[in-house]
Amino acid sequence: MAALQNGRIAGLLLAVLVLPAAIAADSPPNWIDDYRAPATRLINEATRDHFAWNRLAVLTDTIGHRLSGSPQLDRAIAWAVTEMKRDGLENVHTEKVMVPKWVRGAESAEIVRPSRHSLAMLGLGDSVGTPREGIEADVAVVHGFEELEAHAAELRGKIVFINGAFTTYGESSRYRRAGASRAARHGAVAVLVRSIGPDGQRLPHTGALDYAAGAPKIPAAAISSEDADLIDRMIRRGDKVAVRLKMEAHAEPDVESANVVAELRGRERPEEVVVVSGHLDSWDVGAGATDDGGGCVVAWEALRIMKKLGLRPRRTVRVVLWTNEENGLRGGNTYRDTHRAELSRHAAMIESDNGVFRPLGFGFNGTESARQTLATIASLLEPIGTSAIVAGGDGADITPSTREGHIPALSLEVESSKYFSVHHTPADTIDKIDPAEMAKCAAAMSVMAYVLADMPARLGS
Amino acid sequence: MAALQNGRIAGLLLAVLVLPAAIAADSPPNWIDDYRAPATRLINEATRDHFAWNRLAVLTDTIGHRLSGSPQLDRAIAWAVTEMKRDGLENVHTEKVMVPKWVRGAESAEIVRPSRHSLAMLGLGDSVGTPREGIEADVAVVHGFEELEAHAAELRGKIVFINGAFTTYGESSRYRRAGASRAARHGAVAVLVRSIGPDGQRLPHTGALDYAAGAPKIPAAAISSEDADLIDRMIRRGDKVAVRLKMEAHAEPDVESANVVAELRGRERPEEVVVVSGHLDSWDVGAGATDDGGGCVVAWEALRIMKKLGLRPRRTVRVVLWTNEENGLRGGNTYRDTHRAELSRHAAMIESDNGVFRPLGFGFNGTESARQTLATIASLLEPIGTSAIVAGGDGADITPSTREGHIPALSLEVESSKYFSVHHTPADTIDKIDPAEMAKCAAAMSVMAYVLADMPARLGS
Repeated sequence: MAALQNGRIAGLLLAVLVLPAAIAADSPPNWIDDYRAPATRLINEATRDHFAWNRLAVLTDTIGHRLSGSPQLDRAIAWAVTEMKRDGLENVHTEKVMVPKWVRGAESAEIVRPSRHSLAMLGLGDSVGTPREGIEADVAVVHGFEELEAHAAELRGKIVFINGAFTTYGESSRYRRAGASRAARHGAVAVLVRSIGPDGQRLPHTGALDYAAGAPKIPAAAISSEDADLIDRMIRRGDKVAVRLKMEAHAEPDVESANVVAELRGRERPEEVVVVSGHLDSWDVGAGATDDGGGCVVAWEALRIMKKLGLRPRRTVRVVLWTNEENGLRGGNTYRDTHRAELSRHAAMIESDNGVFRPLGFGFNGTESARQTLATIASLLEPIGTSAIVAGGDGADITPSTREGHIPALSLEVESSKYFSVHHTPADTIDKIDPAEMAKCAAAMSVMAYVLADMPARLGS
Repeated sequence: MAALQNGRIAGLLLAVLVLPAAIAADSPPNWIDDYRAPATRLINEATRDHFAWNRLAVLTDTIGHRLSGSPQLDRAIAWAVTEMKRDGLENVHTEKVMVPKWVRGAESAEIVRPSRHSLAMLGLGDSVGTPREGIEADVAVVHGFEELEAHAAELRGKIVFINGAFTTYGESSRYRRAGASRAARHGAVAVLVRSIGPDGQRLPHTGALDYAAGAPKIPAAAISSEDADLIDRMIRRGDKVAVRLKMEAHAEPDVESANVVAELRGRERPEEVVVVSGHLDSWDVGAGATDDGGGCVVAWEALRIMKKLGLRPRRTVRVVLWTNEENGLRGGNTYRDTHRAELSRHAAMIESDNGVFRPLGFGFNGTESARQTLATIASLLEPIGTSAIVAGGDGADITPSTREGHIPALSLEVESSKYFSVHHTPADTIDKIDPAEMAKCAAAMSVMAYVLADMPARLGS
C-alpha cells in the first residue's frame, strides 16, 4: 500500500512538472477567454435545480406519447407554445407541417401451432394491416438478408421471421426498414423481425419500415427477444411453427401538424441564426421521454437560461421542436423548404436526439479548423465532463437543411448504454433519465449555442 | 507492480506454511471419502451437456405457463410422467390434489383524469374482479401500512395505491399479500400495488394476495414501477388522479390436479426417503422458467443421472413436482396429509425454488451437528463452487411436511440477483437461465441427494 501511494505521489509530481508546457502547447486562443464567465453562469444556472427534468415530467406525465397525427401531439405543441411564452421567449409561433397519420389500432400475434403462445409484439410504424381475421401461416426463419435470398424459393405463402441479432442500430434497423419488402418480393405474406435492442425485457421495439416501390405491401411487426428465441428454438428442434398475426394498422389522410419555433433575437446580427432542436413527436408507446422529449427540453433550456440570465448573444438563437421525425421527417423537410431563403444565414444547427443521459460532448462532421474551434468552445464544458468533439452531427431533422445550406451541424452526444434498452418501447419513460445528467445536457446545449451565436466570426462548415 | 507481486508471493508462502494445520483442523471425517468418486461422476454427468436446459426448453416452449387449474398444467403433468418413464425412473405416478381454479380474464387499468394514460398492470392472483364496467375512482397514494393507517379516514371510496419501494421480497410482498384487505377495512374500493422487483422494465409482477377474514373483498392489481412513479409524481404535483380498473378475475370451483412422483428405490432401506422437488405450477404469464420449471428439472435430474450412472443409494430418492405452489400450497399440504404415515421415514426433503442460476450451496435451518454433516457433503461440490451451507431450507411446498415430521429441510441456494427482475412477470422465460449454471444446479442436487440417501446414518434434523 505504501509503495502504491509513493507511486501515485511520483506520478502527481511528474504531472505538475509537465503541465505548464502542455498548457502552453494546447492552450485555446484568447477569444475564448471572453466566454469563461458567461459559460460558468450558464452551467451554474442549468445545474442548480431539476427544472429541465421537471418540465419533461409534465410533458410525459400529462400528455404522454405523441405520434404524428395524434391528439397528444397537438396538445404537446399547444403546451410548448404556452410555456415558451411564459418563459419570455420571443417570436413564439408554430410553423405548419402536413404530416402522415398512421394508426396502429388493435394488434396481436400468437403462435397457434404446435401449441398456443402469445407473442409480445408491436406492429412496425407505417405497416399495412391484416384482414380482419388476421393472417395465419407457417413461419420461415432467416437470420439476415443473405439467408433470406438463399432461401427465397421457400418463402412463398410464409410469415418470414428475420431473426437478426442486435449489433448496432444502424446495422440491425435494416431488417426493420427493408425486411418487409425484401420478403414480399419472394411471396411472403407477412414479416416478423427481432426487436432492435438488448435482450431480455420481453419488450417489443417498434419503429418505421420503408416499403420499396414495386414490392407488395405486407404487414410487419417486431417481437420481443424472448419470443424470437422461442420461435428459433422450436424450428431448430424440428417443430413446424404457425403464427396468426392480426393488425388493424392503417394510414389515414395527412393532417396538419407544426414545428414549434421560438427565439432569442440577436443583439447585433439578428438575421444570423443558431438553431437548437429536438423532435416533439414520438412513437405511440411509452412516453417519448428519451426519444425525444428530453432533447426538446434541453434545447429549449438554452434559450430559457440565456433569457433568465440576461445573456443576449450577437446572433439569434432559435429553438425548433420538430414534428414527425419518427415516420416521415416532414418537420425537417418543411423547415428546409420554408426557410430556404435564410439557410445561408444559419450559423449552425444542433439537434439533441440521443437521449439526455450523461453528456460527453458534441458530434460534428466538418472541416478540421471548424472542429478545432468547436473543441475550444467545448473546453468550457470541462467542468461537467462534456468537452469531447467526435464524429456525428447528423440529426435526422436538421440534416435536410444542413445539407442543402452547407450549415455546420452538431449533435449532442451522451453516454448511451441505456438508450436502446427503452428505444421505441413502452419503457421509454422519464424514470430512465437522471435529473442531474439532464441538467448537464441543458448546460452543454446552452454554452455551445451561446458561444456559436456570439463569437465574432461565424463557424466555418 | 514489483512490490505488489512480492506481496502476493509472501502471502502465498504464508498460506503454504499455515495450510497443513488448517487441513488437519477442518478435514472432513473419513466416511465422506467413499463419496468422492461417485460425486465426481455425478458432477461430470450433470455438466457434460445441456440436457437439463434443453428439457426445460421443451416444457416452457411447447407448454408455456402453467397456472393451477389450467389445461397447460394438466399437459405439463402428463408430459412429466411420460418423460420420467422414458428415463427409466421407478414408481412413476401422479397423486391427486384438488386445487383452486382462479381465472384472470381480460383486465386493464387506465388513468382517466387528468389525462388518459394506460397502465402496465397485472391483477393479483386470487383477486376478485370488478363489475363489467370497471371501477372508476380517485386514487389515494400511501407508501406503506403506517401511512395507510394514518390516512385511514381519507380512503373511503378511493382506489388506494400502495407505493412501497422494493426492498426485500419478504418485506415488499406484505403489501401485495395484505394490502387489499387493509385498505378495504377503511372503505377503499380497489387497490393498486407497486410491483415487487427492480425498477425500470415497464413490467408488472403478479402474485397472490390473501383476503383477511371479515374484510370486504376488493379487486387488486400490481402496476409497473414506471406507472407507480407516474401516479406518485402527479399526485405530488397536486393533480387529482382518477383510475378506471377493469378485471374479469374470478374463482371457479376446485379442480383435480396432481403432484408428479417418481422414485429410484433404495437398495437397502427403500422405506426411507429423500425427497428432491420443485413446483410445476406457475403464474399465468411468462413461461414459468425460473419459477419454477427449472427447479423441477434440476430435482428430477438427480434421479435421471443416478439411474444413468447405475448409482442406486441405500435409501429411496423420490422426486416430487408439486402442484399449486403459487396460489394455495395444496400440493405440499396434500402430500403431508397423504404421506403422514411415512413422514417419520423421510430422511430429508430438498426444494429448488430460487431459480436455477449459479448455485452457491444449500440453505438449512437445523442442528449444528446436522449443519456440519451437510457442510461435509457440500465440500464434494467445491469443484463447482457450491459448497456453502447457509440459513434457509424453508421451501414453501416441503414446509408442511418437514414441520409436521421434523424432517431435515434443504433449499438449493443460487446467485439470485436476476431472479426478481423476472419473478411473476411475462419475462420469466428460459433465456434468463444459463445452461451451464443450470447443469451445476443439477449436479448439486444430484450429489446432495445421493449422499443423504446413501450415508450410513440418517441426517439429524
